Amino acid sequence: MERRIQAMTWKDFERFKDAAVIVPIGSTEQHGPHLPLSVDAIISTGLAEMIAEKINGIVAPTIHYGYKSAPLSGGGPIFPGTIDLNGITLMSLVKDVLEEFIRDGMKKILVVNGHYENEAFILEAIDLLSRQYPDVKFVEASWWDQISEEAMAKVFDKVEFPGWALEHAAIAETSLTLYFAPELVHMDRLVEDGVKEVLTYHVYPAPKEIVPETGLLATARTSSAEKGKLLAEDITKNYVKVALKEF
Amino acid sequence: MERRIQAMTWKDFERFKDAAVIVPIGSTEQHGPHLPLSVDAIISTGLAEMIAEKINGIVAPTIHYGYKSAPLSGGGPIFPGTIDLNGITLMSLVKDVLEEFIRDGMKKILVVNGHYENEAFILEAIDLLSRQYPDVKFVEASWWDQISEEAMAKVFDKVEFPGWALEHAAIAETSLTLYFAPELVHMDRLVEDGVKEVLTYHVYPAPKEIVPETGLLATARTSSAEKGKLLAEDITKNYVKVALKEF
Amino acid sequence: MERRIQAMTWKDFERFKDAAVIVPIGSTEQHGPHLPLSVDAIISTGLAEMIAEKINGIVAPTIHYGYKSAPLSGGGPIFPGTIDLNGITLMSLVKDVLEEFIRDGMKKILVVNGHYENEAFILEAIDLLSRQYPDVKFVEASWWDQISEEAMAKVFDKVEFPGWALEHAAIAETSLTLYFAPELVHMDRLVEDGVKEVLTYHVYPAPKEIVPETGLLATARTSSAEKGKLLAEDITKNYVKVALKEF
Amino acid sequence: MERRIQAMTWKDFERFKDAAVIVPIGSTEQHGPHLPLSVDAIISTGLAEMIAEKINGIVAPTIHYGYKSAPLSGGGPIFPGTIDLNGITLMSLVKDVLEEFIRDGMKKILVVNGHYENEAFILEAIDLLSRQYPDVKFVEASWWDQISEEAMAKVFDKVEFPGWALEHAAIAETSLTLYFAPELVHMDRLVEDGVKEVLTYHVYPAPKEIVPETGLLATARTSSAEKGKLLAEDITKNYVKVALKEF
Amino acid sequence: MERRIQAMTWKDFERFKDAAVIVPIGSTEQHGPHLPLSVDAIISTGLAEMIAEKINGIVAPTIHYGYKSAPLSGGGPIFPGTIDLNGITLMSLVKDVLEEFIRDGMKKILVVNGHYENEAFILEAIDLLSRQYPDVKFVEASWWDQISEEAMAKVFDKVEFPGWALEHAAIAETSLTLYFAPELVHMDRLVEDGVKEVLTYHVYPAPKEIVPETGLLATARTSSAEKGKLLAEDITKNYVKVALKEF
Amino acid sequence: MERRIQAMTWKDFERFKDAAVIVPIGSTEQHGPHLPLSVDAIISTGLAEMIAEKINGIVAPTIHYGYKSAPLSGGGPIFPGTIDLNGITLMSLVKDVLEEFIRDGMKKILVVNGHYENEAFILEAIDLLSRQYPDVKFVEASWWDQISEEAMAKVFDKVEFPGWALEHAAIAETSLTLYFAPELVHMDRLVEDGVKEVLTYHVYPAPKEIVPETGLLATARTSSAEKGKLLAEDITKNYVKVALKEF
Repeated sequence: MERRIQAMTWKDFERFKDAAVIVPIGSTEQHGPHLPLSVDAIISTGLAEMIAEKINGIVAPTIHYGYKSAPLSGGGPIFPGTIDLNGITLMSLVKDVLEEFIRDGMKKILVVNGHYENEAFILEAIDLLSRQYPDVKFVEASWWDQISEEAMAKVFDKVEFPGWALEHAAIAETSLTLYFAPELVHMDRLVEDGVKEVLTYHVYPAPKEIVPETGLLATARTSSAEKGKLLAEDITKNYVKVALKEF
Repeated sequence: MERRIQAMTWKDFERFKDAAVIVPIGSTEQHGPHLPLSVDAIISTGLAEMIAEKINGIVAPTIHYGYKSAPLSGGGPIFPGTIDLNGITLMSLVKDVLEEFIRDGMKKILVVNGHYENEAFILEAIDLLSRQYPDVKFVEASWWDQISEEAMAKVFDKVEFPGWALEHAAIAETSLTLYFAPELVHMDRLVEDGVKEVLTYHVYPAPKEIVPETGLLATARTSSAEKGKLLAEDITKNYVKVALKEF
Repeated sequence: MERRIQAMTWKDFERFKDAAVIVPIGSTEQHGPHLPLSVDAIISTGLAEMIAEKINGIVAPTIHYGYKSAPLSGGGPIFPGTIDLNGITLMSLVKDVLEEFIRDGMKKILVVNGHYENEAFILEAIDLLSRQYPDVKFVEASWWDQISEEAMAKVFDKVEFPGWALEHAAIAETSLTLYFAPELVHMDRLVEDGVKEVLTYHVYPAPKEIVPETGLLATARTSSAEKGKLLAEDITKNYVKVALKEF
Repeated sequence: MERRIQAMTWKDFERFKDAAVIVPIGSTEQHGPHLPLSVDAIISTGLAEMIAEKINGIVAPTIHYGYKSAPLSGGGPIFPGTIDLNGITLMSLVKDVLEEFIRDGMKKILVVNGHYENEAFILEAIDLLSRQYPDVKFVEASWWDQISEEAMAKVFDKVEFPGWALEHAAIAETSLTLYFAPELVHMDRLVEDGVKEVLTYHVYPAPKEIVPETGLLATARTSSAEKGKLLAEDITKNYVKVALKEF
Repeated sequence: MERRIQAMTWKDFERFKDAAVIVPIGSTEQHGPHLPLSVDAIISTGLAEMIAEKINGIVAPTIHYGYKSAPLSGGGPIFPGTIDLNGITLMSLVKDVLEEFIRDGMKKILVVNGHYENEAFILEAIDLLSRQYPDVKFVEASWWDQISEEAMAKVFDKVEFPGWALEHAAIAETSLTLYFAPELVHMDRLVEDGVKEVLTYHVYPAPKEIVPETGLLATARTSSAEKGKLLAEDITKNYVKVALKEF
Repeated sequence: MERRIQAMTWKDFERFKDAAVIVPIGSTEQHGPHLPLSVDAIISTGLAEMIAEKINGIVAPTIHYGYKSAPLSGGGPIFPGTIDLNGITLMSLVKDVLEEFIRDGMKKILVVNGHYENEAFILEAIDLLSRQYPDVKFVEASWWDQISEEAMAKVFDKVEFPGWALEHAAIAETSLTLYFAPELVHMDRLVEDGVKEVLTYHVYPAPKEIVPETGLLATARTSSAEKGKLLAEDITKNYVKVALKEF
């Protein structure tokens, strides 16, 4: 059954009026020498489609451009190919898209965020809408916050978890991309690299040396499609639990 | 060779620094009972990839949400599933995305527009950028303006061309979608319908009867994948001619 | 009877609370060597006053500054004396003015547009207001869309109609200005000129050679005050028809 | 010699590239039972044309809509026919118009303000431009600040000057309108009225009783076209003095 | 009894739900060689606390940054240490803060303004809110407008009152700061200085010589803590009168 | 030596032209039954002044209003007394203030953030400025990120550290407020309370039961002025280390 809004006719869409609409938001951002720029969009879209199956929801066209990747958690403007939106633009974009679903009568909205830096601006857009539409239920959740402890233990079986700030283009993202879009992953280009010192502050202009030349903040070694599948299913299960509770 | 930026690593992207970047912009808008909501995105993306091949360019992630579809040329807010952006939002979105490519050093930008109502806001974004970056060359062109007279004659062989305002979800769009994404076209759901009287003005709130209940503004009869191919190749040829002249 | 709001006292105005308010919007833009910069304002104002007489409406102070004239349909920033607003500014200006009439209790608003490039931004302003004030009826119409086929045949009796994109400072505008403000037309400075090749796309920065040095996109030969009168009456008749139908 | 930009062709305009451009800004606001809504525009336009003659300057199309008339100095939203702009809109409008003249190469800009409440927003627009264009000289001056003591004594010969806050639709404005547009003044409708108590603060929502029912804040008795002429010439002389000093 | 919101717990605050909230707004602006940059904040805060005592109100955290100090009434950007907000920023700031009190259920809001140039932007913020919340009563008043004639006579006993435009860092502000924050006043650094010629217009860029090198627009001689006390009590009495009348 | 800008004259300020300017940003937000609404401002101001002493810097007037406190980390709009800014407003406010220091010639800016939710909007403001002023060095750092492991061990000696999301009005903030403003802390009102279940997602409208009725997210037991001193000195040491490295 087709659950992607972009693939539906308007009459197909109309049948889902009472369903939850799931909006995946990614980014276009450097993800090391082995992963495509759209990793955050690929993962949030893939998860959104899995969640939709379980809760009879539908999936909005993915927002492919996200907020500026911070120097400390992605490399930001230092790397070519990172195409960012300003904060106001992302806020307006999310606000307009969500409001249109509300104007079409939808009352349950789930935003699946795949890019850490997006979150504050997505939440601001939702807060402004929520004041206007108090009878709509909005849930926003980043996928890494939905992983169970059991799954974490299995994924970081040989490599220690470096914290989410550094888990960029590393084991979790590489495994999930190997699961959702294996043809776009170049494991042969993978190198061992990582951030040497984690700064406790933000500095502008960002010194180039903050991020390793490869763009890898932590090792992606031990990534696999199996781990990706395990993560995807674990994360989906937890999103579904949230959706069933809140909607 | 991979030309879609979303599928490239940042190092792949870096190799195209001197190339033209092609930005397809669509919409999420009703397109009658037989076509998917994302027709405008599908067509502009498909064309962008064909053009990229010919001019050694690269293709940015498609902008899937466009400006409000006008009641008279698409049905606008009357139909469920039409997910529009406000004018300011589209302007900011296009401006930010294009500016990021410029900050990455790119000097040749081609916007392939697939939704009529987008154009004024895209041009405003480009005008504001052009004042700031006078050494960058921007070309914006809607696909229907690139069709040759010969192709028009072949496509509208049995049905009279109703004018582009009404050519919504009709022969040209149906044929192009049959070519680019046949699995999303439901020719069996096609009905004969069309606008009875074309208004010479805009009225708000839009009366429901302005657009036929099906959302079809003109007939899609005689559409075919062959006509879609013919159109796609003709349009591509003309975009390439423009690109070669301007870049 | 005074129908221009600017010439009324507030007590005069108050008597028209149930009337339609007509808002003429023009521009300050090059119109060749023989026409004044305010042609678009002169024509929309002149028509607005004629329409007001017929529908017992009143006419708001003219908006003299419009959106950027596009290189392809007016010459834009290439010519001195073209004084444009940014898109957001025009939208805010139109929105504020119309909203004030609504706050004064008026429920019928007719915008008479005299500058092609204004239209998308006027419509955006109206769309945003219409969501807020669903009981107000807004009509927006550009004057060239209201000309009957009969009038066109008489006006383009010797010269072929070049399409509205090129009908800039040409026969229709020259004739209408000869009718509304003959003292501002310099027929003696008129030269034969015109666009050689019509581009099917927009390019920035605009190459100077896109528009002839005179600023004339098509011939103004055969223009006359009589043709202007004929056009003005024909257009007024059609605006009145629209107003009677919609208000 | 034609000095109104709206009446010039672009070639006429071009000849004034080194001249000062004078921008009159008014409002559409209640001015009692005897004066038209556009008094502020009429006076600032009339003065601008007189100044232009003396300094070989040119006059931009008048901005007819101004900032919200305050309850205490005009009656604001209490009276029908007062059509105000929001602060941001007026700022953007003034900024865009002035910037266009700068882009056309002009370096001397004089804003003639005819509506008290406009001033803060005009100055903000100018301040923002001035940071961007440090080589442009901007002068902004409200006409009432340019009256000499001698002229004041002659104008307020029988009636005591009530202060500018109350001089709304009173002797100075009535006399100037009698001079610039006598056909729009209805001296026969004049009544004796005025504000009883001047508040030292602003209160919202504005209580209706703040302003007399007629909209008159002070008497207009003893107004005359002769006083208008005297004022106009005195004010012009002082504007010219400023212009000669600053440009 | 604690009346400063910043010093209260949320439960303390809750007890004042039906009280008036008083919002002091100042600036960070040069005030001559003897007064601190925050004079406007010190005075408006001091007065707000005195008023709160009398009307059982509470005092919001002071807004320390204000709108641009004009060259003619403070010296503006010419002096280091003047830290200004753009007009839109001050409007948004005031609007957000006031709206939050309204969302907490408060219906009586008094803004105590301590910086002349703030007023237009504060009023715009209030006007926009007032349209949305018609049942809230807003009063805005600058402190210098609340001084009685008797107090003025006593304060300007030996020095002639120069008008409020020049009373910057002069007798009234110096006396009030001597009363509210004597430890921040350096009477030993005081010099005799003042504006020689008052301009009747605004000019940008502001010529340095408009304001004396010291930043003093008029003499501060004869200032004293006693005069400050007298002023503070007189002003408070008049604010209280206004509050009792309007709330 | 006076290091608070608000207490300096403009000549005092001028002497620090080459110094670092430190900008403390707080919030007005519920902090349980025992702490004042301005805890975040008190702590960031206190630390800013300590840092200024060590690096010969100066301290800007504190920004007392911050971004919306999220339901999950502070209780947000559920509690009276929380006075938040919209995201755009905080961005504009920070941007304007910082830009003014830059215009005064300062090249070293340190933002001391005391409210978690502020960070994304502060960084956006800085990013936009940094593009415009590449020769200015900006450092932004939240105080909790500057605590050493040793200090953490001493502060959380008897109570387990609950994570920073829940450390709201708990041991660290209570101890620091006991150190900086003991007169505003009501230890007698302290109760034992805390969040039962930490949500892994954001939901709007925020259900009241997300946050305990007291507003306490974790225990404040074992807080003391000594711990506050220890924390303040430890944090200051680390800020100073950062400043010495980056400036």
